[in-house]
Amino acid sequence: MYGIILAGGSGSRLWPLSRELYPKQLLNLNSDKSLLQSTFERLEGFMPKDNIVSITNTKHTSNVRMQLSELSSKVNLLSEPVSKNTAPAIALAVKFIMQKSNSDPVIIVVPSDHLIENQDKFLSTVKKGEKLAEAGYIVTFGIKPDYPETGYGYINTSDELQDGFKVKEFVEKPDLETAKQYLKAGTYYWNSGIFMFKASTLIQEIEKLAPEIANISNEIDFTKSDEIPFIKFDKMPNISIDYAVMEKSDRIALVKLESDWNDLGSWQSIYDVSQKDKNGNVFVGHVLDKDSKNSFVYSSSKLVATIGLEDTVIVETEDAILACKKDKTQDVKYIYNTLKEQNDNTHLVHKTVYRPWGFYTVIAQGKGFITKIIHVNPGQKLSLQSHNHRSEHWVVLSGMALVKLDGKDYTLSPGHSVDIPVKAIHSLQNPYDEDLEIIEVQKGEILLEEDIIRYEDMYGRV
Amino acid sequence: MYGIILAGGSGSRLWPLSRELYPKQLLNLNSDKSLLQSTFERLEGFMPKDNIVSITNTKHTSNVRMQLSELSSKVNLLSEPVSKNTAPAIALAVKFIMQKSNSDPVIIVVPSDHLIENQDKFLSTVKKGEKLAEAGYIVTFGIKPDYPETGYGYINTSDELQDGFKVKEFVEKPDLETAKQYLKAGTYYWNSGIFMFKASTLIQEIEKLAPEIANISNEIDFTKSDEIPFIKFDKMPNISIDYAVMEKSDRIALVKLESDWNDLGSWQSIYDVSQKDKNGNVFVGHVLDKDSKNSFVYSSSKLVATIGLEDTVIVETEDAILACKKDKTQDVKYIYNTLKEQNDNTHLVHKTVYRPWGFYTVIAQGKGFITKIIHVNPGQKLSLQSHNHRSEHWVVLSGMALVKLDGKDYTLSPGHSVDIPVKAIHSLQNPYDEDLEIIEVQKGEILLEEDIIRYEDMYGRV
Repeated sequence: MYGIILAGGSGSRLWPLSRELYPKQLLNLNSDKSLLQSTFERLEGFMPKDNIVSITNTKHTSNVRMQLSELSSKVNLLSEPVSKNTAPAIALAVKFIMQKSNSDPVIIVVPSDHLIENQDKFLSTVKKGEKLAEAGYIVTFGIKPDYPETGYGYINTSDELQDGFKVKEFVEKPDLETAKQYLKAGTYYWNSGIFMFKASTLIQEIEKLAPEIANISNEIDFTKSDEIPFIKFDKMPNISIDYAVMEKSDRIALVKLESDWNDLGSWQSIYDVSQKDKNGNVFVGHVLDKDSKNSFVYSSSKLVATIGLEDTVIVETEDAILACKKDKTQDVKYIYNTLKEQNDNTHLVHKTVYRPWGFYTVIAQGKGFITKIIHVNPGQKLSLQSHNHRSEHWVVLSGMALVKLDGKDYTLSPGHSVDIPVKAIHSLQNPYDEDLEIIEVQKGEILLEEDIIRYEDMYGRV
Repeated sequence: MYGIILAGGSGSRLWPLSRELYPKQLLNLNSDKSLLQSTFERLEGFMPKDNIVSITNTKHTSNVRMQLSELSSKVNLLSEPVSKNTAPAIALAVKFIMQKSNSDPVIIVVPSDHLIENQDKFLSTVKKGEKLAEAGYIVTFGIKPDYPETGYGYINTSDELQDGFKVKEFVEKPDLETAKQYLKAGTYYWNSGIFMFKASTLIQEIEKLAPEIANISNEIDFTKSDEIPFIKFDKMPNISIDYAVMEKSDRIALVKLESDWNDLGSWQSIYDVSQKDKNGNVFVGHVLDKDSKNSFVYSSSKLVATIGLEDTVIVETEDAILACKKDKTQDVKYIYNTLKEQNDNTHLVHKTVYRPWGFYTVIAQGKGFITKIIHVNPGQKLSLQSHNHRSEHWVVLSGMALVKLDGKDYTLSPGHSVDIPVKAIHSLQNPYDEDLEIIEVQKGEILLEEDIIRYEDMYGRV
């Protein structure tokens, strides 16, 4: 079996912990693994690592690759040059698998940012799905509703099959009254966003129901390069697999997903799946509380003191704090969009930015300067680079630094510093066992991350 | 007339904006002046600056002096070497005034951290009080209650005098039922903590009612030095002027305070006196809201996004955030005390610390290093100093620095740096018109503010 992990995502719903450039699937929520990594490990339970293909948007490629490389030495990763929703992404990933494997395998497609607990039950669901997929069905995984949720799409089933049901129709997010009727009818399931099919089945259905996607896919050849050409992909219609195929095809089956499932689509749902104390509270990080109830308080760095809160969500990050009534967490999207309109960077990135070699945090900035703490992991090295518009000054805080500057090597211990003039070719390396931490003061009229010319790079970024 | 400003205070009630070492009176709440400065200016409306004497605790002396020097070239400031409540402080301040003025003037005593609006009405109250003080009364200022507050002490009045009332008794903070009876009786007033008296009247009453305080006072002589000797002051009883004198004396009168008055004793009272928007919200700083009501949100640096809050207080500072139901703001004291017990510095100081020459912020710290941004105001200079346990490395971010290092002068422009070795004698000066901002990286096994030997200092701190 093969797997496709859909690792796009906008990062708006769990703001301020998620950001446009750090969406939900990259977060460690209640685990030491991110949701993306947990998804990868779930698939790894029933297929070789090498059979797993992830597809993400270019802007997330570096972070997705970094996280997956922690789990696998070889990472199959496709990057969409623009966002075109799920149908084009799945079509190309299926094509990639067929060309690479030179076969027609059963493929499971999974979102990268959902919570699924109980791997055994998940496996037995997959086994049932596999049989139906082999029999020529496109199989969706549905969750039996236990309350009239209005935030999910529903799937209505008809005839029973050996391992599932035939699907009658896909329906949009209902209003409460309709949701209650669906619940009562007993034939409706929540759409988990997980699909299974034989590669050729999906390709046939796309050719029949979304020929535009099929035609463009046919022009792309993965035998020479894994890159998706912008000029071709940009012509793809922006459409979900549900609209393009699932709602129109008569070859859809449904298997009931027995595992605990949550789409983690809001802070409310994060609260729902978290372990609570006796007052119904969830406290993460440095929280000091008196008399709060049924609240979710997340501190990523600073002390958060709470008194007498009820049904409230507080999320603290380095540069933004959310305080929200728990039943209004859907409105976080409004905040996110407003910040985006206002070009306020707090929707876009965190203050701490992760890189393959470690991370950096902007600790101060002003007219003509930016000050960062740069943390280089043992054995890692920043690219050999130069800047056209800024000089840099480095002071070692802890660990040892090996600095290359215009062809010469310098070893710097804590307290020592070096000046990197404009246009000087330089690199920062930590060839030692201990973490390296330095202060970098950038000076210049123009201070942009993009002002960088790379000459050599351990991580293929030249 | 003379004035005494009581500028002690613990900083617990408006945490996290107030801290043990940055109490309420030093805060700018809804004005460009601090409460202390507003208090000084209020007195300045009816007496010469030079007649105003402030008394504070040693730990606040530097900050109190800094704020008062912005308003007056000469600052009369007494420092209590230990906290002994208001009776010893007032007794000594009165003695200070009598000795310095060589006279027996009428003195008004005011807390430094209350809000009083309408200076005209305040003045007419003071005029009435002055007449009664001249007639030998100790005059308290009382506020006519308009609801049964349980957080204040009450004063019960009896016979009417020409400009006020005779006082029958002082009563403790009542329960709600008692407070309702006080309100109904019509003879009760809230205790504002403002007093007036002829110097000799108070001294006589202290000699009679608190002879221990009188005896110790008699041993202290301000004709040679303004310093209060620890060895003597430490023997003072720890007692308020209310307990020591007011509740026992039969020479107490009350004048009704007509101004708007608020003790700003909690975030709830800050909310009460603030201008609200049409949804009853008060937003200060970088706040983005959707659908909140009757809430108080204060951001000092970061973005605070709020959704659907009701009757909630959110206060954001650099290192601590408070989220509190508005009717529970009295419990902030519990948080403060818990942090104090836990030796958590967030009760004690802010990340940004103000100094006579400007301010600094600790932006990062770890094993063996502390990194600060140091901001030096134009024309200011840090003391000529050395450190026994740490080296320092300075990088200029903006402005120009004049650095003295082991007898030599260096002028540093943005991007330039200098190393200050352990034990080197050095100073940092900004003799220019523009603000100076530098990064300081301290390195050493021992990193303490106390590791400083001062050789010269513009602000008398040698």
